[in-house]
Amino acid sequence: MALSLGLGCSPGPSTPPRGGAGSASPLPSWNEGPARAAILRFVANVTTLGGPGYVPRAERIAVFDNDGTLWAEQPTYVQFQFALDRVKALAPQHPEWLSKEPFNHLLAGDMKAFAAGGERAMLAVVAAAHSGLTTDEFMGAVRDWLRTARHPKTGRPYTDMVYAPMLELLDYLRANDFKTYIVSGGGVEFIRAFADSVYGIPPEQVIGSQGKLRFEMRDGKPVLLKLPEVQFVDDGPGKPVGIQAIIGRRPIAAFGNSDGDREMLEWTWAGTGARLALLVHHTDGEREWAYDRDSQVGRLDKALDEARSAGWTVVDMKADWKQVFAPR
Amino acid sequence: MALSLGLGCSPGPSTPPRGGAGSASPLPSWNEGPARAAILRFVANVTTLGGPGYVPRAERIAVFDNDGTLWAEQPTYVQFQFALDRVKALAPQHPEWLSKEPFNHLLAGDMKAFAAGGERAMLAVVAAAHSGLTTDEFMGAVRDWLRTARHPKTGRPYTDMVYAPMLELLDYLRANDFKTYIVSGGGVEFIRAFADSVYGIPPEQVIGSQGKLRFEMRDGKPVLLKLPEVQFVDDGPGKPVGIQAIIGRRPIAAFGNSDGDREMLEWTWAGTGARLALLVHHTDGEREWAYDRDSQVGRLDKALDEARSAGWTVVDMKADWKQVFAPR
Repeated sequence: MALSLGLGCSPGPSTPPRGGAGSASPLPSWNEGPARAAILRFVANVTTLGGPGYVPRAERIAVFDNDGTLWAEQPTYVQFQFALDRVKALAPQHPEWLSKEPFNHLLAGDMKAFAAGGERAMLAVVAAAHSGLTTDEFMGAVRDWLRTARHPKTGRPYTDMVYAPMLELLDYLRANDFKTYIVSGGGVEFIRAFADSVYGIPPEQVIGSQGKLRFEMRDGKPVLLKLPEVQFVDDGPGKPVGIQAIIGRRPIAAFGNSDGDREMLEWTWAGTGARLALLVHHTDGEREWAYDRDSQVGRLDKALDEARSAGWTVVDMKADWKQVFAPR
Repeated sequence: MALSLGLGCSPGPSTPPRGGAGSASPLPSWNEGPARAAILRFVANVTTLGGPGYVPRAERIAVFDNDGTLWAEQPTYVQFQFALDRVKALAPQHPEWLSKEPFNHLLAGDMKAFAAGGERAMLAVVAAAHSGLTTDEFMGAVRDWLRTARHPKTGRPYTDMVYAPMLELLDYLRANDFKTYIVSGGGVEFIRAFADSVYGIPPEQVIGSQGKLRFEMRDGKPVLLKLPEVQFVDDGPGKPVGIQAIIGRRPIAAFGNSDGDREMLEWTWAGTGARLALLVHHTDGEREWAYDRDSQVGRLDKALDEARSAGWTVVDMKADWKQVFAPR
């Protein structure tokens, strides 16, 4: 698709590419190597006014998966941990859960029995944790939880478990007049609770899965109530659909780490002109986790094969990144 | 809701309010009167750094209905006229339509029989006209139609049937660092086909009703196919829902003209701090059309009562606007 709109936006005086806020050399946490070189080459290409790959600023759209691409997703998705904690906290108000699957297993601490319930059990917990609140109340609940919850392995706040090299990349792209979006299978309201303060990504640039909302009046004031029903699943083929529905332009750069990002990278890559499609490959079992084809969380299998055949950029976390998480 | 994010955005040096591109005095097509005064007062209030109503730039979100607010919606919605014309053009490829309601009535020119089919007949025609194409193909079809179609009363292109005072208002708000959105019951892909060139509103700032899309491969290339199924209806209570789902911030200014905009204005108005909620009242039967409580298209009834009780601003088109449409 070539939505070559953006009329009225003057091209930026962006030759040569700018390094990003305060950095003399861009991407300081990235080792010199093919991944860093591919990023720098792409940005130089699309920002060189008069060059063959030049892209007007309004069309410099970059989309980032969140879990496993911007922050850690092991041992389990952060949002699922939030849902588990929230269901436990709500249990006193729900005595019926003590005899109702899968809540009974969860509350009894029997995670094996809970896990036997599979995806259906997970969805039941997520629905219970994410509905019955107004959008305002939910935002508060997520922020309260993020302030106190700690990662089970590192003991750090989840919002510390973000990848320093990717923060630099976001910054570098924005310094070169890209508009950076999150396009995640996670819930849009959950991600918005921290995306601006942690990633510098404002709420209107977060695309995610959505539950249904209901507009209603409470004491003469309108609220939006979160319902336990799915409106849209922003994963796999849902990612290009979400991008089209909300942005209405095809991105020129896409960043992911799993098979759930495959269609988003395909959609981005298939546009005309300069493109960057990049996968973060989790290869560092010491500083983070090493996983790909056999992982339950963030499986990377078909997309890894396609990266090699199509010529997408693959980041080898162990080799390409000088640091994974910013120091405390 | 007070999503007071927008960290990292510096407040603009926007005291006093700026007049808009190239205009010595803002809103030259508006007569002096309460509506123009309310707009100027609101903008001065939210842009005065250090003042009691100051709003950071990132939170200056303004939402505009489209049909009847930015362009004419009489004698029928432009998008419905597009659907009628498209069904007629497609008829040779659909011989089955000759014996299928409501297409048979439409193709026989029997608009009375067609109208008897009510909303269901309209939706059938819209679904037929808006599906079976990729998003790229649909964009091309809308643009081709807009180039040649003419308004039945004025003989002008539909994209000339936009309100000059509202174009000035969009411009004035943007000059004061507002982000201007369309929030329409019309189809998002239809509106995007002209919103950038006509209103200066880029595709990612158009929110509208959506059909379902399907990601699929065609000759090894990904496409997004428009399906004849509804994903989301962005009208009435759907407007604040769409705003929350896509923007994730509550607007501080909302502009509409019908009961379908009522909840959007309520949602905007109920936020804390300075607010502007404005209805365009179609009172000028000579220069445009005069209609409100009894109109099938763009009915304005409950929202007009609420405007008076709540203190919303009502534009009297006949009295408040020096011109309605820009001259040819």
